[in-house]
Amino acid sequence: IAKEVAKLLEMKAQLGDEGKAKFVLKTPKGTRDYSPKQMAIRERVFSAIVTCFKRHGAEVIDTPVFELKETLTGKYGEDSKLIYDLKDQGGELLSLRYDLTVPFARYLAMNKITNIKRYHIAKVYRRDNPAMTRGRYREFYQCDFDIAGQFDPMIPDAECLKIVHEILSELQLGDFLIKVNDRRILDGMFAVCGVPDSKFRTICSSVDKLDKMPWEDVRSEMVGEKGLSPEAADRIGEYVRLHGGLDLIEQLLQDPTLSQNKLAKEGLGDMKLLFEYLTLFGITRQICFDLSLARGLDYYTGVIFEAVLVQQENEHVEEPVSVGSVAGGGRYDGLVGMFDPKGRKVPCVGVSIGIERIFSIMEQKVEASAEKIRTTETQVLVASAQKKLLEERLKLISELWDAGIKAEMLYKKNPKLLNQLQYCEDTGVPLVAIVGEQELKDGVVKLRVVATREEVDVRRENLAEEIKTRTSQS
Amino acid sequence: IAKEVAKLLEMKAQLGDEGKAKFVLKTPKGTRDYSPKQMAIRERVFSAIVTCFKRHGAEVIDTPVFELKETLTGKYGEDSKLIYDLKDQGGELLSLRYDLTVPFARYLAMNKITNIKRYHIAKVYRRDNPAMTRGRYREFYQCDFDIAGQFDPMIPDAECLKIVHEILSELQLGDFLIKVNDRRILDGMFAVCGVPDSKFRTICSSVDKLDKMPWEDVRSEMVGEKGLSPEAADRIGEYVRLHGGLDLIEQLLQDPTLSQNKLAKEGLGDMKLLFEYLTLFGITRQICFDLSLARGLDYYTGVIFEAVLVQQENEHVEEPVSVGSVAGGGRYDGLVGMFDPKGRKVPCVGVSIGIERIFSIMEQKVEASAEKIRTTETQVLVASAQKKLLEERLKLISELWDAGIKAEMLYKKNPKLLNQLQYCEDTGVPLVAIVGEQELKDGVVKLRVVATREEVDVRRENLAEEIKTRTSQS
Repeated sequence: IAKEVAKLLEMKAQLGDEGKAKFVLKTPKGTRDYSPKQMAIRERVFSAIVTCFKRHGAEVIDTPVFELKETLTGKYGEDSKLIYDLKDQGGELLSLRYDLTVPFARYLAMNKITNIKRYHIAKVYRRDNPAMTRGRYREFYQCDFDIAGQFDPMIPDAECLKIVHEILSELQLGDFLIKVNDRRILDGMFAVCGVPDSKFRTICSSVDKLDKMPWEDVRSEMVGEKGLSPEAADRIGEYVRLHGGLDLIEQLLQDPTLSQNKLAKEGLGDMKLLFEYLTLFGITRQICFDLSLARGLDYYTGVIFEAVLVQQENEHVEEPVSVGSVAGGGRYDGLVGMFDPKGRKVPCVGVSIGIERIFSIMEQKVEASAEKIRTTETQVLVASAQKKLLEERLKLISELWDAGIKAEMLYKKNPKLLNQLQYCEDTGVPLVAIVGEQELKDGVVKLRVVATREEVDVRRENLAEEIKTRTSQS
Repeated sequence: IAKEVAKLLEMKAQLGDEGKAKFVLKTPKGTRDYSPKQMAIRERVFSAIVTCFKRHGAEVIDTPVFELKETLTGKYGEDSKLIYDLKDQGGELLSLRYDLTVPFARYLAMNKITNIKRYHIAKVYRRDNPAMTRGRYREFYQCDFDIAGQFDPMIPDAECLKIVHEILSELQLGDFLIKVNDRRILDGMFAVCGVPDSKFRTICSSVDKLDKMPWEDVRSEMVGEKGLSPEAADRIGEYVRLHGGLDLIEQLLQDPTLSQNKLAKEGLGDMKLLFEYLTLFGITRQICFDLSLARGLDYYTGVIFEAVLVQQENEHVEEPVSVGSVAGGGRYDGLVGMFDPKGRKVPCVGVSIGIERIFSIMEQKVEASAEKIRTTETQVLVASAQKKLLEERLKLISELWDAGIKAEMLYKKNPKLLNQLQYCEDTGVPLVAIVGEQELKDGVVKLRVVATREEVDVRRENLAEEIKTRTSQS
């Protein structure tokens, strides 16, 4: 019995200990860590995007992760409730940035910049209820490219669409479609359909739901919740089912009601110009003028667009990730003026690439393929065949580091050669530099190629060069 | 009078408008934007650091910018009051990360990783009252390299110091000194000086102030505020003025009181081993064993170190930025265990490079030098010599982009050639591809070298290749 009691007490003590040390060991809701393997994929995606942004001559800026709360106030419409606020710990009231566009506009106004083409890649924060399986998070990266300045119409706008086209092609995510519309066309359409001015924004955000809800549901939201007349809703319904290319633009320019509206006419005129430029770029096949595209954010004033993946092309993937939009953007000519003390406007147009969804697809593709991703760039492992050679290994690896060679060694005094070779197999290190008593006497190092097991003696003073030559193509 | 009244009313209206649009146009206290020029310098610093981390075989990870509040609780000692909390908007209680070390430990415990060498470069947040002229901020980057795992003593520790040495040498910031100590030596010293166990941490944080306060002030804090006996304080005073190299370690190993303490003896033994390895690396000239080094954070358990710049070497800089420590780190063998449900320990040692102070110095150096920093990588501007060639420019630039050339054009229908050439002068674009009626007929493009004003006709199908060749060395 005494034995049993002791056992029970010990168990209890263990439980107590566990209770004490019990943390909820997790990342906050809607966030994630990136493991080295995931980082390797992420850096590939970033590299493709940054290369494209630089190809288009963009500079890069960075802004703080939080802004004064009032900087974000009144910029996002219905989405404002999703902003993360910081606790009031004395001092300024702060919020985490919700996108990179409003901080960019603040930056332009603050520094009186009227002309810039910049990119910005950083995390943004939204207190959404995300479906993480679909690659949506509360903390996620945006990769933004924007052109600010007073220019001739639609030239920068066309470049933004070209950029989306280049990036989505480069990443080989399968077929995609870029939907394009214009807020002026939407507003003109609302006007001719009989929507009162005061309801433009809220009806616009109903239209925005058409990619997730059938028309009937959107219609009842308009009529039921938002008090729109059924006739107006039906007229909207006629328009938002339209999509096409230059032909549709021409048709609407002839539309007896819509063409009477000044805003719509302006928007349609610019849309025609845009399609002409996109034709010169040779990318109209993936671009669709779509009257149902509305975009949620309040600040757009002209062209808006959104890129969606049409299907998963890769047949290795058994269950394709269902992804929504992977890029979006538009023109926001009024946002900078909201920050300028004198209301001076700086016209802007930009695109935002949503990396998380793209990343989910890339990750699945890599998982499904046989590709083995290396997470380090180590060129050589400094090893020893006998004991008591730690000092010699340290001396050699130090020489290699100083010569710019990427080198590792096992942190053991007397590692077994087999373990050292196994480490190379596991991590993909291509070469092993082996020091031994004899090699030290001869002033050489034995260089072993892991893949072929070939071994050659290399004079110590030539070792770095030899390693560089042998790893230069990889 | 009517005129005057109208004028006044207009002025009033303007004021009213201004009042309405009045924002405090700034970034939050202790934060900053990075302009394209500053980003160019920042990327240079990052590149040097990442290259070094990769040379040492590190993988890379990323973690969210905020953690559960309880993840950070009880890890930082007196510094905890500087943590930014997020507002409770329902759901989990969150805090912005204070460093990258605690999230790393959480990551290891959560994923049951017992063996990794990783780097992590990201922003951290401290509600400090920073002196921004000295390059200190509330939002700042840390560049961390850590080695986790059970290894033979001091081999990973020595590598961390080698890394600091490589990075500070590479960045050419002038002379630097890396101070080294060990928490076990400090604790042993406190014990033999008669400090009660319960006061170890708080006396340690007094010692930590010795780089900013004279000994007399630190002594009065110990005796006055913290209730240490004057005798104990004086005994500590004897030790903390000691600094040196292997000789001092040997001397202290012989010290009749200190060598009686088990912890101190262990620490001194390891310190001796560390210096032997650092001698093999050839870097002891910049390393100093300093008994006054304490480091603020609670979680260190063994070796600690801190790198300081000794003076500004660059004589072009009139008023040198006064900078404190630019790197620091140490061993924290207990931190991962605090997160593991069973308290399983994973020994860790790591280094953190503080980029902001380094960046301030680099920025001043660039300002003082004649160096002109380019903020884009554009290789060629697509220009036209006559009017009505917008379409032709769009076609050509699209061809160049698709061929991987970094190309820009002015967003104007009919830009003047002079303005286009001026743009290249201003931004450092080296080449101009000029389309004109005659060139179009001949199937060529006129390629102009901005620096020499040399112009050659290049066949259109060879243009991309020609641009690549001409810009390959830059």
